[in-house]
Amino acid sequence: MTFPLKNPNPAAKYRAVFRCINGCPGQYPLNEVIYQCPKCQDLLEVIHDLDPLRMTSPDEWKDIFDSRFMRTLWPYGSGVWGKKEFVCPDVLDENVVSTCEGGSNLFWAEQLGSQWGLKDLWVKQCGNSHSGSFKDLGMTVLVSMVKQMRHEGKNIPAVACASTGDTSASLAAYCATAGIPAIVFLPKNKVSSAQLVQPLAHGAITLAIDTDFDGCMEIVKQITSRNNIYLANSMNSLRIEGQKTISFELCQQFDWAVPDLIVIPGGNLGNVSALGQGFLQMKAVGLIDRLPRIVCAQAENANPLYQSYLSGFTKFDPVQAKPTLASAIQIGHPVSVKKAIRVLKEFDGAVEQASEVELAEAAAEADLTGLYNCPHTGVALAALKKLAQRGEIGPDERIIVISTAHGLKFTGFKTRYHASEYEEFPCRFANPPIEVPAKYDQVRDALFRSLDARNAQLSRAYL
Amino acid sequence: MTFPLKNPNPAAKYRAVFRCINGCPGQYPLNEVIYQCPKCQDLLEVIHDLDPLRMTSPDEWKDIFDSRFMRTLWPYGSGVWGKKEFVCPDVLDENVVSTCEGGSNLFWAEQLGSQWGLKDLWVKQCGNSHSGSFKDLGMTVLVSMVKQMRHEGKNIPAVACASTGDTSASLAAYCATAGIPAIVFLPKNKVSSAQLVQPLAHGAITLAIDTDFDGCMEIVKQITSRNNIYLANSMNSLRIEGQKTISFELCQQFDWAVPDLIVIPGGNLGNVSALGQGFLQMKAVGLIDRLPRIVCAQAENANPLYQSYLSGFTKFDPVQAKPTLASAIQIGHPVSVKKAIRVLKEFDGAVEQASEVELAEAAAEADLTGLYNCPHTGVALAALKKLAQRGEIGPDERIIVISTAHGLKFTGFKTRYHASEYEEFPCRFANPPIEVPAKYDQVRDALFRSLDARNAQLSRAYL
Repeated sequence: MTFPLKNPNPAAKYRAVFRCINGCPGQYPLNEVIYQCPKCQDLLEVIHDLDPLRMTSPDEWKDIFDSRFMRTLWPYGSGVWGKKEFVCPDVLDENVVSTCEGGSNLFWAEQLGSQWGLKDLWVKQCGNSHSGSFKDLGMTVLVSMVKQMRHEGKNIPAVACASTGDTSASLAAYCATAGIPAIVFLPKNKVSSAQLVQPLAHGAITLAIDTDFDGCMEIVKQITSRNNIYLANSMNSLRIEGQKTISFELCQQFDWAVPDLIVIPGGNLGNVSALGQGFLQMKAVGLIDRLPRIVCAQAENANPLYQSYLSGFTKFDPVQAKPTLASAIQIGHPVSVKKAIRVLKEFDGAVEQASEVELAEAAAEADLTGLYNCPHTGVALAALKKLAQRGEIGPDERIIVISTAHGLKFTGFKTRYHASEYEEFPCRFANPPIEVPAKYDQVRDALFRSLDARNAQLSRAYL
Repeated sequence: MTFPLKNPNPAAKYRAVFRCINGCPGQYPLNEVIYQCPKCQDLLEVIHDLDPLRMTSPDEWKDIFDSRFMRTLWPYGSGVWGKKEFVCPDVLDENVVSTCEGGSNLFWAEQLGSQWGLKDLWVKQCGNSHSGSFKDLGMTVLVSMVKQMRHEGKNIPAVACASTGDTSASLAAYCATAGIPAIVFLPKNKVSSAQLVQPLAHGAITLAIDTDFDGCMEIVKQITSRNNIYLANSMNSLRIEGQKTISFELCQQFDWAVPDLIVIPGGNLGNVSALGQGFLQMKAVGLIDRLPRIVCAQAENANPLYQSYLSGFTKFDPVQAKPTLASAIQIGHPVSVKKAIRVLKEFDGAVEQASEVELAEAAAEADLTGLYNCPHTGVALAALKKLAQRGEIGPDERIIVISTAHGLKFTGFKTRYHASEYEEFPCRFANPPIEVPAKYDQVRDALFRSLDARNAQLSRAYL
């Protein structure tokens, strides 16, 4: 690919632009306020000029990435900005807004894997981050670009989004760090204060509007299109560029070996496309020589991609999403569906679904082996368990589950499970407290009874 | 120091033993089940033989530490185990139970520092970890040693503690990861389910005993002393060895420069002694050539060390701790007080206290600048603010605040603040949602009114 017509920054060695995902002509610099193709109104994607990237050999890039990873040279210690040339070369280092994203633990799920017959199972703990979810990986790029544009003199008084979950938490955290006002739109009386606490604490202007979520989206679009306020919703493909560094980091954490299978939960499907983009870019410049399989896991109550997969991706129909414990992926009409299907086709991909009881049980089983993740990770784990039980995964395959958020964001979900408060299904793995009088003998007996039961369970699992 | 009499492992190059903090004769291998000096019943501490450590030059050690930090060689990528020779050389690599502790972001608090007149203010985000608090740094060492002892054939059926907060969460997570049973003792009906959810989710045997906290401690001691169950409470000095790597990591993250001042919240005071131990050990082997000042920050409602500091540490009297929002440091009779006073004397140390309104405001101010930490970090920040306002800190000093837990563990604390639900004090920094009808003009007006107010505030802060 060449960039003959409009080079956004002729002095820059590395170049990237927005282009339409449907191939409409035209390209737009990354520091332009644009979210959709002006011709077909579909999504844009960031396209990198590969020629300058290829001027450095793959081994040299690996050395560069390794020399930066979690080190002290600002902002290259960040897992995202350590790959800056592949992510967003246009932002000046001093305009980067970073909380040292990435570098999250790749947890070897030895015990869970052993229970499920998978010897080489790993969980990428993306929720172990500043705001507690993988959204930080993309938000650092978006907010840095806003800081860059403000630095260049563009009039962008604030950044806005309509999410009430991880996205608004991350947006508010990065904007607060940068001193840029953030605005969060939400339907009045439809969001709990616990869901809101992160944006409120970070000083986001939080507008509770007397309408439903669609009404909020309508008003956000009007506000942002007429007032120079930058839109941070999931249409914004700058976020994908940060999120795709998950793929780089996974390989880096295995000394640049490519895993066999990656399972990732999917709602709006931006993360599936980001994961694919990362691997494709690495392959295009020779950092890796093969692609992993990718499995997207959906909640059964919000499964439009699963339905499409059953048709061999010959058609896609939005669905009316039903409530699910995996609330962040309760999405019937995903924004990034086209990109995601393109990725799944290229990665020998599959889609699996998980019911409410399946996702809750998988999350609980994982917690019992030391993990502590969100219900969306539960969806991915449940999907993996089903594939394993059906014999669709070899016992020696190296599998990575992408955990999207820290379990600390979902205390209610876990508390209700262990109190067996879900009426829809039995909580087989619930572990309630044992009440005992304050007598040594009785405490001792209760304790050893419980211990014997655990040990019997563990023996069953391991023998 | 030499180890002439009892060398726990003659083949080992690096050696460490338990010794009494009061200098009673005797030394005990780290794989012995012992928590107190058999002669005076006071605490033990881990003493390292410095001679073998000095056989490697400081520059070589720095290269070794840097080559391991966040890298892939098990278990040396962990911030704790990357310093294994200085921490706990006795544990075999295959017995280490690790979630890649440490490596947490050192957040440059540019905005908060600018508001408080401090140009070089940093927050060490220890809560950005597997279980969400700094306790993971010590727990990895304790649970690894238990795995090692079980591997050596010792009969240790379980590990127990009486904490209901971060300690039990971390213990349960590491034990679950290792497949070792954990037991948590707590007073029945005195702990909320939200406080308990981590140990329950990780399958800890959780005994709710019909007594108060002191009654629980009594029973835990009986149970552990008679049944080979290992005690994980804060008397156990193995945890200090992991926690002290904070000091190593702080220097490493500044390319081995020593900061000027460190502020750390203190309750049981194990973390103050750990912080000091780390710096002293680094200085003893030549990794650094000076010590920072250390300020311990206490909640005014639980301030025995502050009272002692006012007397020039000539006396120490336990106090009856009153309830505080900084619940984890509501301790009137700290276990590690002797060690902590020793450290503070050696580090030109001070103690400062923070009232409830001061800690809540400091936490809220920090959140507004992008941080998101626990109320205990609020105590440290409030203490720092008071020192700065009194002119006791130079504007160019490099200051580090140790954040002990992620704000996600304290959703209620932040939610109540922003809903102005604290009756005892006004919530000056509260940021409640703004309710607006679903009309473009009204939303726009509300938004820009709020934006103008923020910008005016920001201008005041920066000009």
